[in-house]
Amino acid sequence: MDPLTYKQSGVDLEAAEEAVRRIGPLARSTFRREVLGEIGAFAAFVKVPAGYREPVLVSSTDGVGTKLKVAFLADRHDTVGIDLVAMGVNDLLVHGAEPLFFLDYLALGKVVPEKIEAIVKGIVEGCRQAGCALVGGETAELPDFYAPGEYDLAGFAVGMVERGRIVDGSKVTPGDRLLGLASSGLHSNGYSLARKVVFERMGLKVGDPLPGLGKSVADELLAPTRIYVKPVLDLLKAVPVRAMAHITGGGLSGNLPRVLPNTCRAVIDKGTWPVPSIFPLIREAGRVAEAEMFKTFNMGIGLVIVVAPEHVEHCRGLLASFGETVSIIGEIRTGARGVEYAGERLGR
Amino acid sequence: MDPLTYKQSGVDLEAAEEAVRRIGPLARSTFRREVLGEIGAFAAFVKVPAGYREPVLVSSTDGVGTKLKVAFLADRHDTVGIDLVAMGVNDLLVHGAEPLFFLDYLALGKVVPEKIEAIVKGIVEGCRQAGCALVGGETAELPDFYAPGEYDLAGFAVGMVERGRIVDGSKVTPGDRLLGLASSGLHSNGYSLARKVVFERMGLKVGDPLPGLGKSVADELLAPTRIYVKPVLDLLKAVPVRAMAHITGGGLSGNLPRVLPNTCRAVIDKGTWPVPSIFPLIREAGRVAEAEMFKTFNMGIGLVIVVAPEHVEHCRGLLASFGETVSIIGEIRTGARGVEYAGERLGR
Repeated sequence: MDPLTYKQSGVDLEAAEEAVRRIGPLARSTFRREVLGEIGAFAAFVKVPAGYREPVLVSSTDGVGTKLKVAFLADRHDTVGIDLVAMGVNDLLVHGAEPLFFLDYLALGKVVPEKIEAIVKGIVEGCRQAGCALVGGETAELPDFYAPGEYDLAGFAVGMVERGRIVDGSKVTPGDRLLGLASSGLHSNGYSLARKVVFERMGLKVGDPLPGLGKSVADELLAPTRIYVKPVLDLLKAVPVRAMAHITGGGLSGNLPRVLPNTCRAVIDKGTWPVPSIFPLIREAGRVAEAEMFKTFNMGIGLVIVVAPEHVEHCRGLLASFGETVSIIGEIRTGARGVEYAGERLGR
Repeated sequence: MDPLTYKQSGVDLEAAEEAVRRIGPLARSTFRREVLGEIGAFAAFVKVPAGYREPVLVSSTDGVGTKLKVAFLADRHDTVGIDLVAMGVNDLLVHGAEPLFFLDYLALGKVVPEKIEAIVKGIVEGCRQAGCALVGGETAELPDFYAPGEYDLAGFAVGMVERGRIVDGSKVTPGDRLLGLASSGLHSNGYSLARKVVFERMGLKVGDPLPGLGKSVADELLAPTRIYVKPVLDLLKAVPVRAMAHITGGGLSGNLPRVLPNTCRAVIDKGTWPVPSIFPLIREAGRVAEAEMFKTFNMGIGLVIVVAPEHVEHCRGLLASFGETVSIIGEIRTGARGVEYAGERLGR
């Protein structure tokens, strides 16, 4: 039998090095002044930023989920990195933290430097939008794990907040208003269901137009998750925000209660914001129950901000000046922790 | 057609919640005093530890690679988490950093709470050995990504080091000695090649004994990666360490040069440490060239520490008192950055 080499076993270190050469300058373009040194050592170095009295590290990890399957079908790989960063940094943000740095884990069956470069370009774009540094990552070539052309992607975000300024929902009070910031579409959750409806029930291909949307399936389903970092960090300097929720898997129903005190109930008025057309389309084509829709998808609201009534107008103006679409979607009432829906039915 | 639900699309949020219930107490058992709050919010909180003048965050991400395939074959899931933590924290450690906290990303085709609990038990054991807190993680159910029963695992480690005490190899000097700390076996690299040799060339099953090793394939190939944190952090208080290298993918040949100055060459004497039997077995059964072995596997050395000659005996004694097996495996000479092998052939 022939002598075996590591390359014959399916691992191509030279292609991996080529990928690293392409990634390096991209990553360095995101470096903040706190970053020390270069990518390439065993680990990455970031100074604790100046100006904190009691600095608290805030961290989160997440993936992009089966949204990646749409990227595979469309062979479009430069946007899922934005989703990856968004999932992490929006999670830090809702606690009042400023994102500092990010690392990614990319696992694929075969290293294709061009594809890795496209993926990392997306991550870099996300980091740019969030103002954080891409300081490291791992590209793992795992023969036999992933179908040809497929990959998985995980991200890790670390930020910092002054201990006394952590936003945790403990000060939420009946009468507070819920501000909803518009999502850019499905964001990165509910894709197992969305794909089933669009590709199986509706029988569409990824390049087909979505009925009534004026967009292809790929364009709608790959719209990058919105990153709310810059407007919200600005808002936090100006207004006492009582709670925030990032609307991910579980929807409004699952995510909002996570930041409410035991005695506070969120009452959401469904008629108060424009629901993007993709949601009624999925509901109708999949005959998905409305409650199921609200606990699976963001339904057009990517981030909820809870403030006292007297701050609502200031918040709206400030967020709108950053280009956010803001709706007053409900209020806090006394009651068991949870979400209650009132008002108009979806899609009227 | 029937109404669709998220569960029918392959995602079982109730099973995920059951998994979270099992994981929570395990993770909390690792909490250090710097950890604030509970797992379950959008992110995790860790105070910057006291006692640093210029604290620098050190971070790393890695996976376990195709070692996971052996865990699938053996249906043994409580050790790969140790590997996951080891890969991350040893990377921080070689720069002198104390591991602070860890997050994991676990992606699987189907949530099986018992299996997730076993995997997290391993991660918790790794965190315990490394003295770091498991503060968060993501369990992603990705139908259609992973073969039945399979999963992927990524980890993110964050530590801290005083800026003036970063170990980066810049002070390495000709005449310095290389101390090699014994590995526990293959650790977490080279498994694509090792599996090809053991399962294809040798035709063994995972429960079969490995010829001449007195162990089953599973026991040898799933031996957890050694975590060197506690002895090395102790060493760093006592001795001026000039460089350290974590011997991962790329072996001694690939990893040692990463921490050497341009004008320093590592000369390694192959006859100086006991090479575990798994390595000559793979070399012979796979007819793998010796140079290929040294750039694919750790060959019995999991961590290399570079110190001035006058500190060698102190280091050896201190590390041995922690149960480490230490060998003087070579020295630094003037020359182009790289690794040169001298001495006896492997396996004599």
